[in-house]
Amino acid sequence: MSKNLTTRAEDYSKWYNELVVKADLAENSGVRGCMVIKPYGYAIWEKMQAELDKKFKETGHQNAYFPLFIPKSYFSKEASHVDGFAKECAVVTHYRLKTAEDGSIEVDPEAKLEEELIVRPTSETIIWDTYRKWIQSYRDLPILVNQWANVVRWEMRTRLFLRTAEFLWQEGHTAHATQQEAIAEAEQMMNVYADFAENFMAIPVVKGVKTANERFAGALETYCIEALMQDGKALQAGTSHFLGQNFAKAFDVKFTNQEGKQDYVWATSWGVSTRLMGALVMTHSDDNGLVLPPNLAPIQVVIVPIYKGDDQLAAISEEVNKLVAKLRKLNISVKYDDRTTQKPGWKFNEYELKGVPLRVAIGPNDLANGTFEVARRDTLTKEVVAAADVVTYLQDKLDEIQANLFNKALDYRNSHITEVNTFEEFKDVLDNKGGFVAAHWDGTPETEEKIKELTKATIRCIALDRVEELGTCVLTGAPSAGRVLFARAY
Amino acid sequence: MSKNLTTRAEDYSKWYNELVVKADLAENSGVRGCMVIKPYGYAIWEKMQAELDKKFKETGHQNAYFPLFIPKSYFSKEASHVDGFAKECAVVTHYRLKTAEDGSIEVDPEAKLEEELIVRPTSETIIWDTYRKWIQSYRDLPILVNQWANVVRWEMRTRLFLRTAEFLWQEGHTAHATQQEAIAEAEQMMNVYADFAENFMAIPVVKGVKTANERFAGALETYCIEALMQDGKALQAGTSHFLGQNFAKAFDVKFTNQEGKQDYVWATSWGVSTRLMGALVMTHSDDNGLVLPPNLAPIQVVIVPIYKGDDQLAAISEEVNKLVAKLRKLNISVKYDDRTTQKPGWKFNEYELKGVPLRVAIGPNDLANGTFEVARRDTLTKEVVAAADVVTYLQDKLDEIQANLFNKALDYRNSHITEVNTFEEFKDVLDNKGGFVAAHWDGTPETEEKIKELTKATIRCIALDRVEELGTCVLTGAPSAGRVLFARAY
Repeated sequence: MSKNLTTRAEDYSKWYNELVVKADLAENSGVRGCMVIKPYGYAIWEKMQAELDKKFKETGHQNAYFPLFIPKSYFSKEASHVDGFAKECAVVTHYRLKTAEDGSIEVDPEAKLEEELIVRPTSETIIWDTYRKWIQSYRDLPILVNQWANVVRWEMRTRLFLRTAEFLWQEGHTAHATQQEAIAEAEQMMNVYADFAENFMAIPVVKGVKTANERFAGALETYCIEALMQDGKALQAGTSHFLGQNFAKAFDVKFTNQEGKQDYVWATSWGVSTRLMGALVMTHSDDNGLVLPPNLAPIQVVIVPIYKGDDQLAAISEEVNKLVAKLRKLNISVKYDDRTTQKPGWKFNEYELKGVPLRVAIGPNDLANGTFEVARRDTLTKEVVAAADVVTYLQDKLDEIQANLFNKALDYRNSHITEVNTFEEFKDVLDNKGGFVAAHWDGTPETEEKIKELTKATIRCIALDRVEELGTCVLTGAPSAGRVLFARAY
Repeated sequence: MSKNLTTRAEDYSKWYNELVVKADLAENSGVRGCMVIKPYGYAIWEKMQAELDKKFKETGHQNAYFPLFIPKSYFSKEASHVDGFAKECAVVTHYRLKTAEDGSIEVDPEAKLEEELIVRPTSETIIWDTYRKWIQSYRDLPILVNQWANVVRWEMRTRLFLRTAEFLWQEGHTAHATQQEAIAEAEQMMNVYADFAENFMAIPVVKGVKTANERFAGALETYCIEALMQDGKALQAGTSHFLGQNFAKAFDVKFTNQEGKQDYVWATSWGVSTRLMGALVMTHSDDNGLVLPPNLAPIQVVIVPIYKGDDQLAAISEEVNKLVAKLRKLNISVKYDDRTTQKPGWKFNEYELKGVPLRVAIGPNDLANGTFEVARRDTLTKEVVAAADVVTYLQDKLDEIQANLFNKALDYRNSHITEVNTFEEFKDVLDNKGGFVAAHWDGTPETEEKIKELTKATIRCIALDRVEELGTCVLTGAPSAGRVLFARAY
């Protein structure tokens, strides 16, 4: 069953990189840090997009599109924003190439832009420059807009999906008349993300808020969902920011409220990205390859014929075609792989590597007995099922796999939240067990920074459901009002 | 009924610009040549995307995503490609900003890229650089991939949707084992586009091929669909290119064919863009505003209550809510505008400006009589309809409007294809009637160029269904094998 895949125990990071490439999800391109998302990987991303888009629209949001480029001067307008993004951005300085005398292609020095343009790392600045024109009165509020877009952050060390110079995402940007309404919006979108992660992607998440250190550049509060990967490292799966009036002030966006007075507009922004593809891989997959929750599988059921000679294949295909038609009627995505160029064993391997949830095999004996052999990708178990029952069986198993993957990941996550009360324990758990470490912290950025230096662990979040509990900081012994979740993270 | 909209007769170009902004489709941004696509405009684009995407998948294509940036050196590899695109492209030269001593933000001169990156104007080069890794044998072919993306072409004179520095589009890039198969693919996609334009957007098009002068940079044949706007100017609405082996040779993409021999791979590419939004506006709209075919209307039916006092509104709303529920069941997109902040007349104007196909009004008399008043946007006519019949009536009218808009545009287009036999006639038709001028041409780029200089008209296409007919060139008198379609164009 070898797919020449490094095992997770051998080298988790290598396993991840190999799997992403071998399962045809993505690959590195000729452009530093930029990936190619291959059709199989993109089909999974499309399913995420469709579900998220539906949820955004159900909560009253509309899509729009804003420019890829942001004038350099916009960055200066919100001070923390420039600190957060200007140091790693792609800058357009010229608008023409020319052919040099030796025939080579070079940048035309005469085609220099008056003001440099930044390729958007996020769109708050260009969007709030636009909202100034859209908002005069409380009647123009709220504005509930989302954008599906590519963004660029010039990361020096990149990894497929997890950290790439260019990535795909959605960014919601909303404008409100009151602080209260903006906070409610930011919280709502965190909940939308959590619901999506858990019930669609089968990835359990902790909902919480970031500490000041870990907040988005320009936010007053960052809500997040944090997931736990199989190697015990955390992954931030989505964030939703309450931006206060920071961008409204930076871009002078005022409105007349119901009392006829002028006030600055309140803002939120929220986003998830192709990083979720990395979370998907690292939550469910195993040493045999990808494991996909049925909701996200481009192929939910694959059918492989086992036969000798054309006559057997014809008889098998007749049975299979009937099954395919029934499954399609139920909106189950099914592929019948009757290629004659590959052997069944090769196909079994291939679909296992690609994480297809259910594999149906049918050979001459099955044909004689009126049965199918059904293999589950998540448990690697097989059952023989009577033809009369197979449609219902497959349908039930898809639901069962979706639920099983979530529960398995939830068990792992729950057994990897460890309360510690000393710094020795803290380090021991991080080094030998991994996962979230629930520890008391004195609330200062300095202690947080110090712990990060000593252990590479950061505060992933202050969980919304944490128990209020007096304690003493695991590092300084200073008083604390409750535990926060530390982890090493992607 | 004034919407302060310039009329088409007064100034067609001004009418277009005003309408795009006033109907909330798009507006200029703070970035030179880049537009903001507003929610209402983007909702229309999403409908186009969904329908095209369905058609692409039905014809066996998959989506993928390739990098935004293209290394400068890639451009040098296909000679005509660099001529076509390098002169108007955005060039990234640096990857960091820094804060200067005076606090201003500037490009960090130490963060200069070793090789400049071009923001993609089209993706043939980066995609064929990738395909080299994907293709070894005929078994890897065909590759049928599409990408939804933003692209940048540094146009000096821009207009909303029609010509913008950044625009949204889809670009298909396919790879084939034989020339014949690649040509069939390019023709198929032209037919997909024509079907989409005519049957979904209600825009009649001429299918044809471009002359060598007008071909895509790097193509051996460019198939196109050409539409005619209400002002008599043509608009290229989509193109599909047979690229031969040009890109395979430039990027060294070879495969082993069934006979075990190495050959270069055959290519096509094809695309349509947000330019189609411009075509939509200029095909159907009128002096009162936008006119949308029901297929593309974000709101297909709007319902406006006419009432005095809360009791009347409540009684009307009860009736309306029943109607809304029935229409939604039929997947008709309906909006009930019961805002109390605006008067009915204001709402009528607003939805007329925004091109909503059907407007239903209901007042106390209607309530007493069990009727609704239904107004059609395309004909600006009204009818009173019994409540019992209104659902069927609205459903039928939506179909009728879709068909009517196409037929109206087709009549206009057909009456604006004028055969001419002398250059005097040629100029006269262009200046006084507009539309396509069907004229004999001697087949040389020189004559084509000369005619363009003298009249600003270009050969829009050699129509696929043109009649073979011997004649003499309208400019030079040299022999010609058939008429070609000239026009002034967007």
